[in-house]
Amino acid sequence: MKELKEKIINEGSVLSDTVLKVDSFLNHQLDPELMKLAGEEIAARFKDTGITKILTIESSGIAPAFMAGLTLGVPVIFARKRKSLTLNNHLYVAEVTSFTKKETNEICVSKDFIHADDKLLVIDDFLANGQAVLGLMDIIDQAGASSVGVGIVIEKGFQDGGRMLREKGIRVESLAILKSLENGTVSFLEEELVR
Amino acid sequence: MKELKEKIINEGSVLSDTVLKVDSFLNHQLDPELMKLAGEEIAARFKDTGITKILTIESSGIAPAFMAGLTLGVPVIFARKRKSLTLNNHLYVAEVTSFTKKETNEICVSKDFIHADDKLLVIDDFLANGQAVLGLMDIIDQAGASSVGVGIVIEKGFQDGGRMLREKGIRVESLAILKSLENGTVSFLEEELVR
Repeated sequence: MKELKEKIINEGSVLSDTVLKVDSFLNHQLDPELMKLAGEEIAARFKDTGITKILTIESSGIAPAFMAGLTLGVPVIFARKRKSLTLNNHLYVAEVTSFTKKETNEICVSKDFIHADDKLLVIDDFLANGQAVLGLMDIIDQAGASSVGVGIVIEKGFQDGGRMLREKGIRVESLAILKSLENGTVSFLEEELVR
Repeated sequence: MKELKEKIINEGSVLSDTVLKVDSFLNHQLDPELMKLAGEEIAARFKDTGITKILTIESSGIAPAFMAGLTLGVPVIFARKRKSLTLNNHLYVAEVTSFTKKETNEICVSKDFIHADDKLLVIDDFLANGQAVLGLMDIIDQAGASSVGVGIVIEKGFQDGGRMLREKGIRVESLAILKSLENGTVSFLEEELVR
């Protein structure tokens, strides 16, 4: 997505060969117009797949997921993160390890909101090693529901989450795919090359 | 807001005399169309106040704040919650005690995103004792910026946050004000009565 790539070039900050900071429009401050375009673009790519609900994780996934849900006319569920296990039989729970933050969180979704006949689109802000997406897919499996695929705002193409998910046969659509952050410079992979 | 009050009546679950669960459209699953109306209504009430940015807290404030930001054409900042103090000179930090959850969290906002000439609209999903709003106001003060007021989706009119903020001279606009949850029944205060 052209507007997103321009924003990354203009406002993204390369903190290391693996970390891109995009706090000014995605992870802390939101650019509503850009998030609207991102949500609409993800919605457009999956529009004929019979989606009944969208599933994301708090907090940075909420804005693009919300806009995709508004565009498609379906509810949006945000999985909750939590540190410790409080036993609750009414929750689907999955573990997610963040390599960046070196911590494991549980994510959970109430059983009230995903049913066996649901077809879910998973949306997240970043795709790196794919652990968050696998956690969300695990929750969808626990509910006996199905997924139509994954919509991502920024994919780190140099980490293996995208390849791993695509090799499992999961449809992954990313609005911008980072080829490299080496030497403090952002370069993009053309999306056509990963389809 | 009529649509919101109807949704609360139809889908809200009264867990006790003080707790209303609205997980199906605001706190866990989002009803995008209703959140759009809520954000637009808050934006309309404050539209002539010269807002430069919107400030909310992750996670349930994000959807209505995002829609208000999209409507007004201004960026939306979501304050981050965190458990423990990591020293970081580049953050504004405030403490927020949740009486419901019986815990104190720090909320923080990067100094990059609030400046002395900013006029901020604070938006949150619930207003109960007002501690979260006070924390956000504290951060605005630390930045030397000013606030035009507070937009709330659901105010618990039987708790004292709304009165306390209004007595400080802060403009508080709530889309639905709960008068009581006693006997498992939701009743609303007419908004005109609190102005």
